[in-house]
Amino acid sequence: MQKVTAFRMRTDTLGRVALLSLLADSPQTVIESAPDHRVVLGQVGTMDVQKIIAAVETAAKREQLIGPEYAEEHALYHATLEALHGIGRGQIALGTLLRTVGLRFSLVRGPRLPGDQTTWLAVALYGTIGQPVKGMEHEVVGLGISHV
Amino acid sequence: MQKVTAFRMRTDTLGRVALLSLLADSPQTVIESAPDHRVVLGQVGTMDVQKIIAAVETAAKREQLIGPEYAEEHALYHATLEALHGIGRGQIALGTLLRTVGLRFSLVRGPRLPGDQTTWLAVALYGTIGQPVKGMEHEVVGLGISHV
Amino acid sequence: MQKVTAFRMRTDTLGRVALLSLLADSPQTVIESAPDHRVVLGQVGTMDVQKIIAAVETAAKREQLIGPEYAEEHALYHATLEALHGIGRGQIALGTLLRTVGLRFSLVRGPRLPGDQTTWLAVALYGTIGQPVKGMEHEVVGLGISHV
Amino acid sequence: MQKVTAFRMRTDTLGRVALLSLLADSPQTVIESAPDHRVVLGQVGTMDVQKIIAAVETAAKREQLIGPEYAEEHALYHATLEALHGIGRGQIALGTLLRTVGLRFSLVRGPRLPGDQTTWLAVALYGTIGQPVKGMEHEVVGLGISHV
Amino acid sequence: MQKVTAFRMRTDTLGRVALLSLLADSPQTVIESAPDHRVVLGQVGTMDVQKIIAAVETAAKREQLIGPEYAEEHALYHATLEALHGIGRGQIALGTLLRTVGLRFSLVRGPRLPGDQTTWLAVALYGTIGQPVKGMEHEVVGLGISHV
Amino acid sequence: MQKVTAFRMRTDTLGRVALLSLLADSPQTVIESAPDHRVVLGQVGTMDVQKIIAAVETAAKREQLIGPEYAEEHALYHATLEALHGIGRGQIALGTLLRTVGLRFSLVRGPRLPGDQTTWLAVALYGTIGQPVKGMEHEVVGLGISHV
Repeated sequence: MQKVTAFRMRTDTLGRVALLSLLADSPQTVIESAPDHRVVLGQVGTMDVQKIIAAVETAAKREQLIGPEYAEEHALYHATLEALHGIGRGQIALGTLLRTVGLRFSLVRGPRLPGDQTTWLAVALYGTIGQPVKGMEHEVVGLGISHV
Repeated sequence: MQKVTAFRMRTDTLGRVALLSLLADSPQTVIESAPDHRVVLGQVGTMDVQKIIAAVETAAKREQLIGPEYAEEHALYHATLEALHGIGRGQIALGTLLRTVGLRFSLVRGPRLPGDQTTWLAVALYGTIGQPVKGMEHEVVGLGISHV
Repeated sequence: MQKVTAFRMRTDTLGRVALLSLLADSPQTVIESAPDHRVVLGQVGTMDVQKIIAAVETAAKREQLIGPEYAEEHALYHATLEALHGIGRGQIALGTLLRTVGLRFSLVRGPRLPGDQTTWLAVALYGTIGQPVKGMEHEVVGLGISHV
Repeated sequence: MQKVTAFRMRTDTLGRVALLSLLADSPQTVIESAPDHRVVLGQVGTMDVQKIIAAVETAAKREQLIGPEYAEEHALYHATLEALHGIGRGQIALGTLLRTVGLRFSLVRGPRLPGDQTTWLAVALYGTIGQPVKGMEHEVVGLGISHV
Repeated sequence: MQKVTAFRMRTDTLGRVALLSLLADSPQTVIESAPDHRVVLGQVGTMDVQKIIAAVETAAKREQLIGPEYAEEHALYHATLEALHGIGRGQIALGTLLRTVGLRFSLVRGPRLPGDQTTWLAVALYGTIGQPVKGMEHEVVGLGISHV
Repeated sequence: MQKVTAFRMRTDTLGRVALLSLLADSPQTVIESAPDHRVVLGQVGTMDVQKIIAAVETAAKREQLIGPEYAEEHALYHATLEALHGIGRGQIALGTLLRTVGLRFSLVRGPRLPGDQTTWLAVALYGTIGQPVKGMEHEVVGLGISHV
């Protein structure tokens, strides 16, 4: 039986907004509580690392979270790679190491924290990693942050 | 001004309990909502990776989250190293790369998810990483999970 | 001409049993000399890392060296990944780096050393690595150990 | 009680000679059984990776296993680094990750296998890694091979 | 005897400007030939990776190549880390692996290539790496590029 | 409009010869100015790391820069892998990380510097890395050096 509890949390920093968007029962509440940040959500299940990168990029472009310049693509790419370090924990590789992931992701654009005049991008990944057998898996999380 | 909102979240999986213990305004609420899991909290600010490992180990032993056998130490050590991959994102190194962290950590012992008959350990780390200059930093998160 | 000599060696520690099973002219002698340890042997030649992991897992399950719980799979997986670090020496990758391996492996379950009351798993890999051209290769070894 | 058994093993390949020199009860038997290979033995216990590299280099020079040219130093250095990958299994770091090693090493110079007309260097490391607490450790092995 | 020859080279891309500033007999010629790029030069000899990072940052700030915001520090830091991958080739570590470097560096700010409307930072490192013994070394190069 | 300027540069060290062969407007000038070094040039555009390794090896063999013994193949392979660290900057992977390269390479055989009596191999790679979309890319460089 799924158990749901209410917690009080701050949503004024970039990373918190990204992480809570993935952990909350209702991501919408997180988004509404963080008006200075733009949030894009998505999900991907795969054994190919490049499909995670592609899913993140496609979502960011479709929702115009990043502009058309390569500089913004580059920022998103590096934030994604950094988040993948948390997922892979030593090797950014999935199927080639006989493992698979089921992930939800949040992409957040905005200040690092209240008062920050610069703009940053966060990529958070949360879900499970494990063998390609149902139930043979455990949770993973990753967070990457880049200046824009 | 700090903004705090209430979110509804599940606390029935190991990783969620570990992460919410660090993100919630009141960790006590998380601990109470997860009666199947034992939670130990702590914090560490340092430029030396070994001090994070030592702080985690000391807290786990002091609170008897792990037993005296090397097997349990080994499980905790590996979960910590995995969490550090999320913090370091490519290099498990701090001062030698001219960066410092301010982290809070949660150590959780219990089933991976409801119905799991086996016992696991989670180490979650959350805080900031950056230059050894106040304000020159951004958020980081790491999660490592090991069987016991 | 193949030269074979007799050596006197201890077989009372987990890693030694795993390594000698691969280096000895007659693995059976090793197995008999280590009654506290269970040993499973196998071999695999491939350019795909995941095939090594799959071969190890298949052999372990077929011989019931590990139980059906994910916790034991997880222990075997991590021991295998650690052994692969010795094989790859910097990159856990084969065909994508234009190299191939011919490996024999031993999987050992038992105490770390005489008197240890806990149970551990060792995965040892030994063979050759090199270009996909006969003779263009040299020896490699890897050993991973995990608590169960 | 230490248990010693006699095994029959081939000593005609570079890596085997290096590994058996460390595993055999009497390294002298290995050395005598491999007349085409020169073997240097040593040991080092440390929390500093550089002390392993220095101990290997000092032993090799003292026993004139390598000549005075930088090319031979370079070969030995790279073989040592490769062996350290087997020891560190993901991170070539000891004290900075709060772990220590007690290692014996063998350095072997000679052909890769019978009939090989070229000269190679092997560095093998074998011992234990673990916490800086007696008994909190398990075995590790590493092997690096370089052309000279 | 030092041999110097004249070569014709393009200086209209960010990376070329950074690399030629280090390879040319007279860096001033490079700087004059690349009016769209700002170039800062420096040098550092050390066994501590953090001293390279500090030398780069100090030079960039002193010459006001980067502004006072953390976002620009972050860009420079990541470009420096990327360049260090070329120097370390597998391990971003020097003294802990018993090796030392003598490097010159160039920091360049400007468009990636003619027509690029965005601003980027390049960090190039060139010099020697080797044992802490005069002459026991060979050349290394590294280049890191980040959006600003 | 492409801008070409003449620079005066030394070509008496192995790494410089390798790098200038790739950066100069006319590689022929570099080759002529370095009579003690043999230079082989080539290019490769790919999303598969193994194709870079294969292109380098094929060029070296076709031009007889290396002999038929495995020892020389091994030297070339390791120099190539080291150069790839500069290209990948953390991960030796391309398509699996959704990125592609367009590279030119130079392979140089000769002394490390004037007066060196030993022979070394350098592999230099220079070009662009980026998304598989025209223009979404920036420059990269890598240099690997091995004794022969």
